[in-house]
Amino acid sequence: MVGLGPGAREYLAPRALAALQAAEVIVGYKSYLNFIQDLLADKQVVSSGMKKEVDRARAAVEIAATGKTVAVVSSGDPGIYGMAGIVLELAGESIPVEVIPGITAANAAAAVLGAPLMHDFVVISLSDLLTPWETIIKRLEAAGSGDFVAVLYNPRSQGREAHIETARQVLLRYKHPDTPVGIVRNACRGEQSSIITTLGQMAKEDVDMFTTVIIGNSQTRIIHGRILTPRGYRL
Amino acid sequence: MVGLGPGAREYLAPRALAALQAAEVIVGYKSYLNFIQDLLADKQVVSSGMKKEVDRARAAVEIAATGKTVAVVSSGDPGIYGMAGIVLELAGESIPVEVIPGITAANAAAAVLGAPLMHDFVVISLSDLLTPWETIIKRLEAAGSGDFVAVLYNPRSQGREAHIETARQVLLRYKHPDTPVGIVRNACRGEQSSIITTLGQMAKEDVDMFTTVIIGNSQTRIIHGRILTPRGYRL
Repeated sequence: MVGLGPGAREYLAPRALAALQAAEVIVGYKSYLNFIQDLLADKQVVSSGMKKEVDRARAAVEIAATGKTVAVVSSGDPGIYGMAGIVLELAGESIPVEVIPGITAANAAAAVLGAPLMHDFVVISLSDLLTPWETIIKRLEAAGSGDFVAVLYNPRSQGREAHIETARQVLLRYKHPDTPVGIVRNACRGEQSSIITTLGQMAKEDVDMFTTVIIGNSQTRIIHGRILTPRGYRL
Repeated sequence: MVGLGPGAREYLAPRALAALQAAEVIVGYKSYLNFIQDLLADKQVVSSGMKKEVDRARAAVEIAATGKTVAVVSSGDPGIYGMAGIVLELAGESIPVEVIPGITAANAAAAVLGAPLMHDFVVISLSDLLTPWETIIKRLEAAGSGDFVAVLYNPRSQGREAHIETARQVLLRYKHPDTPVGIVRNACRGEQSSIITTLGQMAKEDVDMFTTVIIGNSQTRIIHGRILTPRGYRL
């Protein structure tokens, strides 16, 4: 299980690179394999599209069972909404699995925005493909009541255009409209861009499936064009 | 601001390595500089002990103001309870600051344990040096009521031996005693070790300042000696 990090090679851990080089078979979602196109020569490649995670995991485990070394790639970290869980579950006890962590979108987006995650935070996916929407709402409420910084994964995609607006409304019950919000698109990739706004003003049009959204806590502020959640040091 | 990741060189991002090599001055906490001892030759090094974060940040900013290139190192990710916030705050607008993210303890510990972070999670530091203890309790309550997986940073250190036990008691009001718990010491470093137990049975003696503690949600289970929080796929 290999975490590619944000995608740019400069954020790929040497251990992840070594695992990719050593693998006889590479399994992954098509778009992510583009990040490592140059490493695929002479290897068996199993790729498939979105929502085919179970098929990919099954293929990886079946090939590994024949004795081959298989690298299953995830963008970011395979252990954060990635492929690690499903592969571990299918692999059973007979196939050894190593999880190689990577820099996940929360960390990459935070670095682009400044330092929004200097204090306690929650990570919530707004995708209700596999999670009841009521559970997501309950967690947004808890993020609000606990005054956490909130990192939203999968904030928008086809079929859930309204989710980010609902999330905003739930958080507005607990957080001030002036709470800083950062929207980062393609964090730490070539075409990276970001917007800094507030919970009261953020526009759902700025949020798409390539973005990660970070919403501050009660102490978060915008200084010098960056988002900062102070840890509490006396300066 | 350079994230060293867990410490082992194989998890150091190429961009972080390049920044360290390019820096004229390296500023950091003594123990973390040990991870990069071989990179310090011919460089000005400013190191200090624990709880000296403000001094180090001030020194870094003052040196950078003279025109030198300064790398301030944090273990893990400088943006997660690291040095990024304090340096950004002190640097003002005149000194350009780049935050280079790293693999943080949550990701490293999760990889060691299996796949506990496949679903929504909170990250909470149990250190009350800079945070009122009531705020920490409030966040533990929210972690419980939201059925989040919980990652605890700074779970124990001198002067707060009892905090992990209090945290356990708070979470037990919401989570079943059989909830899986992973305690990882020196995650993804040479001397790494880990314990898998339950919320009901975990012993505070197993938790020290080098550990990260991950406590499951209501769906988390132990399979084949690893902790797995299923994402919800039908297998």
